Amino acid sequence: MAQVIEVTDPADPRLDDFRDLSTADRRPDRPGGRGLVIAEGVVVVQRLLASPYPVRALLGVRRRIDALAPELAALDVPAYVASADVMAETVGFHLNRGVLAAADRAPAPDPVHLIERVRTVAVLEGVGDHENLGALFRNAAALGVDAVLLGPGCSDPLYRRSVRVSMGHVLAVPFAPLEPWPDGLKWLRDSGFRVLALTPAADSVALADAVDAHERVAVLLGSEGPGLTPEAIAAADTAVRIPMARGVDSLNVATAAAVTFYALGERGSGGTARQG
Amino acid sequence: MAQVIEVTDPADPRLDDFRDLSTADRRPDRPGGRGLVIAEGVVVVQRLLASPYPVRALLGVRRRIDALAPELAALDVPAYVASADVMAETVGFHLNRGVLAAADRAPAPDPVHLIERVRTVAVLEGVGDHENLGALFRNAAALGVDAVLLGPGCSDPLYRRSVRVSMGHVLAVPFAPLEPWPDGLKWLRDSGFRVLALTPAADSVALADAVDAHERVAVLLGSEGPGLTPEAIAAADTAVRIPMARGVDSLNVATAAAVTFYALGERGSGGTARQG
Repeated sequence: MAQVIEVTDPADPRLDDFRDLSTADRRPDRPGGRGLVIAEGVVVVQRLLASPYPVRALLGVRRRIDALAPELAALDVPAYVASADVMAETVGFHLNRGVLAAADRAPAPDPVHLIERVRTVAVLEGVGDHENLGALFRNAAALGVDAVLLGPGCSDPLYRRSVRVSMGHVLAVPFAPLEPWPDGLKWLRDSGFRVLALTPAADSVALADAVDAHERVAVLLGSEGPGLTPEAIAAADTAVRIPMARGVDSLNVATAAAVTFYALGERGSGGTARQG
Repeated sequence: MAQVIEVTDPADPRLDDFRDLSTADRRPDRPGGRGLVIAEGVVVVQRLLASPYPVRALLGVRRRIDALAPELAALDVPAYVASADVMAETVGFHLNRGVLAAADRAPAPDPVHLIERVRTVAVLEGVGDHENLGALFRNAAALGVDAVLLGPGCSDPLYRRSVRVSMGHVLAVPFAPLEPWPDGLKWLRDSGFRVLALTPAADSVALADAVDAHERVAVLLGSEGPGLTPEAIAAADTAVRIPMARGVDSLNVATAAAVTFYALGERGSGGTARQG
């Protein structure tokens, strides 16, 4: 059971995990020079508590810590209670959501294990924007993507802003780096995945026509501006596109991902809509 | 042909359309107490110039105005050229995109005309967030939605931030208020549209199973938190949902809209994916 501890001094060293959050995403003292995993708000904290990341501590106003009582009953970590003012001084800004949790990172899973028994994976190349990456993980979680593999140029999914934009779902979707690049894509194909590269190119195959019902699929997504590299597209089985209206060049990458994940989720689902 | 005019004084009254942009979205002197339509950046300015909104003037650094020369050749409005510093002082902040255009608003089209000869419309209720609204219009433009009807509680699609987030596509997708509410939905049904209400409710019909190939469809979308009102859902033909993974409550409204627009765009498209 978590130990609830009142704190009144914002300089209390027990709150160091939560100090100066707006600069704490990069911490030289942490593995890889990266910060702890930080969850903000009751819902995202609940998702962190349910995740594989080892929770270190919570900090919140009384009402929010009370709201988490069911989850805290099963947890042996300190839960610091402070006023909103003390929290703001520790964290470095006023925090609307009223509660934070900090966890250690965990080693990335081995991609070999990650792709066992999964049906759909997303592979990202050059998705460097933290908000796009967070939104993409939220969409992956919602639309049944089993795992995410990170090629070169991707930002850190556990960066605080990504965690927040993902609504905490980045804590539930397993991810790992895919190396080397782009040979890792060949390995995916050898492992039984059909690799689809999403591109706006007109000579690609419409998404709905590219997916067979019972295949395992890896969908390769690039960043919004430059898109996938030619090397990545060449290493895929098929270039696919979302059919778009004339004059519109592209969708936001997380949105394009959502449409693709939805279409993949529908494969072999036995729906009748396409028979019209 | 546009008249290119050098301006060196940020207080020059000819630049008033572009003054203090961060507060200019609400202007008591404009119809409805709303600001002009403002486009930022070459691509969005091009979309404004191609839109039905009557352009009043441009303001930009030399390089950006030069980039717009082909469009300006056909246009009889002043194009003010200024340094980045003069622009920043006029506008109230430093503008990365280097060019602006201002246009008058235009009267909303009559919904009766708007829905003639269109196949897919989106109807929004309570979409009050300017960024979500802009993103939704971008997705509507990309994925073949012909028009947008605005129920109560929606924000102004022509607010500067919406225009920017939509990448200017809000200027290309016709929209109008739908009144009265929710009786306007009955009018849509009487006009031959099947009205689908998007909801996360488990007792709704999966999106792919709800759409017949040759129907005209109006898809009703609510805001991310509260969703559609019971009155709006009751006025629709069918409540539909995007199938989601366990434990995930919802998608962002613009993302849910994109998935829905994609699925509607696929109806009757003759693809083969769903036959597996």
